[in-house]
Amino acid sequence: MPPAPTAYDVVDLIRAKRDGGRLAPDEIDWLISAYTAGDIAEEQMSALAMAILLRGMRREEISRWTQAMIDSGERLDFSGLTRSDGSRRLTTDKHSTGGVGDKITLPLAPLVASFGVPVPQLSGRGLGHTGGTLDKLESIAGWRASLSNEEMMTQLDGVGAVICAAGSGLAPADKKLYALRDVTGTVEAIPLIASSIMSKKIAEGTDALVLDVKVGSGAFMKTREDADELARTMVALGTDAGVATTALITRMDAPLGLTAGNAIEVEESLDVLSGGGPPDVVELTVELAREMLAAVGVTDVDPAQALQDGRAMDTWRQMISAQGGDPDAALPQAAHSHTITAGVSGTVTRLDAMSVGLSAWRLGAGRARKEDPVQAGAGVRMHAKPGDTIRAGDPLFTLLTDEETRFERAASALEGAVDVDAEGGPVEIPNLVLDRISAEDIAAGPAAQG
Amino acid sequence: MPPAPTAYDVVDLIRAKRDGGRLAPDEIDWLISAYTAGDIAEEQMSALAMAILLRGMRREEISRWTQAMIDSGERLDFSGLTRSDGSRRLTTDKHSTGGVGDKITLPLAPLVASFGVPVPQLSGRGLGHTGGTLDKLESIAGWRASLSNEEMMTQLDGVGAVICAAGSGLAPADKKLYALRDVTGTVEAIPLIASSIMSKKIAEGTDALVLDVKVGSGAFMKTREDADELARTMVALGTDAGVATTALITRMDAPLGLTAGNAIEVEESLDVLSGGGPPDVVELTVELAREMLAAVGVTDVDPAQALQDGRAMDTWRQMISAQGGDPDAALPQAAHSHTITAGVSGTVTRLDAMSVGLSAWRLGAGRARKEDPVQAGAGVRMHAKPGDTIRAGDPLFTLLTDEETRFERAASALEGAVDVDAEGGPVEIPNLVLDRISAEDIAAGPAAQG
Repeated sequence: MPPAPTAYDVVDLIRAKRDGGRLAPDEIDWLISAYTAGDIAEEQMSALAMAILLRGMRREEISRWTQAMIDSGERLDFSGLTRSDGSRRLTTDKHSTGGVGDKITLPLAPLVASFGVPVPQLSGRGLGHTGGTLDKLESIAGWRASLSNEEMMTQLDGVGAVICAAGSGLAPADKKLYALRDVTGTVEAIPLIASSIMSKKIAEGTDALVLDVKVGSGAFMKTREDADELARTMVALGTDAGVATTALITRMDAPLGLTAGNAIEVEESLDVLSGGGPPDVVELTVELAREMLAAVGVTDVDPAQALQDGRAMDTWRQMISAQGGDPDAALPQAAHSHTITAGVSGTVTRLDAMSVGLSAWRLGAGRARKEDPVQAGAGVRMHAKPGDTIRAGDPLFTLLTDEETRFERAASALEGAVDVDAEGGPVEIPNLVLDRISAEDIAAGPAAQG
Repeated sequence: MPPAPTAYDVVDLIRAKRDGGRLAPDEIDWLISAYTAGDIAEEQMSALAMAILLRGMRREEISRWTQAMIDSGERLDFSGLTRSDGSRRLTTDKHSTGGVGDKITLPLAPLVASFGVPVPQLSGRGLGHTGGTLDKLESIAGWRASLSNEEMMTQLDGVGAVICAAGSGLAPADKKLYALRDVTGTVEAIPLIASSIMSKKIAEGTDALVLDVKVGSGAFMKTREDADELARTMVALGTDAGVATTALITRMDAPLGLTAGNAIEVEESLDVLSGGGPPDVVELTVELAREMLAAVGVTDVDPAQALQDGRAMDTWRQMISAQGGDPDAALPQAAHSHTITAGVSGTVTRLDAMSVGLSAWRLGAGRARKEDPVQAGAGVRMHAKPGDTIRAGDPLFTLLTDEETRFERAASALEGAVDVDAEGGPVEIPNLVLDRISAEDIAAGPAAQG
């Protein structure tokens, strides 16, 4: 039982941060626990959040802030996962900052687990233009997102892979603070983004974590500089908390794969698990699997091979079944479709991720408010990606929805989303993975700022 | 009837200001009216206030913000004050940003009115270390602070001077916003300070306004740079609103006069109105009177003479009587007194205003919360000011209160408040008035920032 925290004057602490000062460890502990308890008013915390956004926090402040958010709730513990010889089985996890068509978790979790490494993947639902992993999996008949801690442990021990909803007991301070930031223009504070993500991931109890930090028009981080800072901050936080953490910075200017929606992304994931699928989805799945395995010491393996030989698919089927889903059930299909064709011939040089995400959202694949339902069959199929050659009249997009009235606004989101070079010359496609950041890279680096 | 304002997304506006953008006139109008109506949450306005504090506002934004706060409530109108020939009698007013021992309003209002210029002085109560004009006057038996608009108009027309409480109908948006800023660390935003003061003064309907902007340890503005910026911003706001506005920047490192409290400040004001009183109080009263009179075109007069010949005192007596007070009643005296003496001989080189203000506050002269009462007799009498020669054992301060238990903490506030140079050489006392800022000075100046 820790001693009762000393009461501070919240206005003094807001003013200190506002004037560029540093918050002391005890002050941060008090701020988070008093806010969680309702002793700091929302208007005070929002003023502090704005001051943090504009003034930044140092690495040690962000670490303590994150730890205090973890301490506000329960913490999962997978240390009971052992091999027959009694040695611990280390867990590994992945977090993506969110992108359009980002279904990577679906093939990735069973792929990594097929090497005997348990993957406790706690996920969320989608809000806005990027879809949610749970929304996608819920298009599988019978599959349920909510597991008790015991069910999760049993499945991790047996199947190895779990993708389920994060319980409300993890980092409740983060939940409260995130809702506040959303309505006060303080979402974009890198220290607060980093501590929000990392408090949940650390509370989840994983031994290793690989971060997929997206950058580009369809990502939350629009610039390379912001993405780098977020990645470095999160790797520092994970490292400080004893979690083996690395980050990949990956492009999110075009969507990942050829589908953005729910059931159609499951379908594409099944293609990947069957040894096919779009090259970019396969590439990123394999790269992240390699990182996740290496983080727990598994290095002499070939994840690409496990996609080809069906091992990953076997684990997928066990994982879906364990959570009540029927891996052989037909996926839901949208009631209506509408095709958009190319007006000119040439080579596609750009396909805007944000436009595709917005279109899928308008078709019913995403939600505007937390309590909204999503359509399992809705979304956008893409028929050409940057580098592909097209002819006038070829299909570019197929829009899918259960409500025909949605087509008009969904189609308008795609106006100007594709650039075609009529000369038809070769297009240089940059690498998907732009950089890798590990604990060594930040050890001597500058303090994370705002 | 203005058209219904377009609804904006408050989060977009917060983000725009956060990122250093400019708020458009219609956006500002909407922000203030929606906030007053309760359609913008307190946590959203506090985030915006913090963004304004750290990012600033341009002159045209502050002007519009001030106008929107004025438009949130009623506006007084003194245009009905006329001379026998039917010409308008222009009104003139003063506002001080607050200092220790600042009783200037008391002799100033009747002094200016004694020249036939009406002075509608709407005042407030004290909070924190500076006293409130109404608290001081309420130590006069029978005097009442609240007047109806009709009573105020009648008194202005007859006596010429009114010092009364500002009605709650003036700039209600400011009242709500000020209460929020107080608890969210956003008081110190110069655009918000300036618009708060000026919205009330402009709504009050005065034709001319002289600002006494204090700078120094006992003032709200600690640096010359901040005081200059506040003064320039307020002069710009008054000018933009058609009020003839000038500002004096005056020192507030030592208290004004030799008293800090309530009844003892009335007593010192009566000394000034009788042609005596401390030289600094007389100097500032005369300087401000000259400015207030000049602002409405009255220039060939000598305010110092009106203090000597009793004209200002006559108006004072009429002013107090008109509001139910007895100008001849004995002033309340504190039940207990305690004297602090000098430990060494020499010349006083420093007397810290903040320490004296804090001591008077602890003695019961001020309040910690709006609803607290104040003691009429409590306060600090000073027996030496910078430049005075003292001998060890001479009295430095007399502390006054109705509750003896208050002496200890009040005395401790004065520890280190006085510096004495044992060499006893002459001390250079800088001018009380440091600068004067008029509309001409800011016409071509830079935009006011945060």
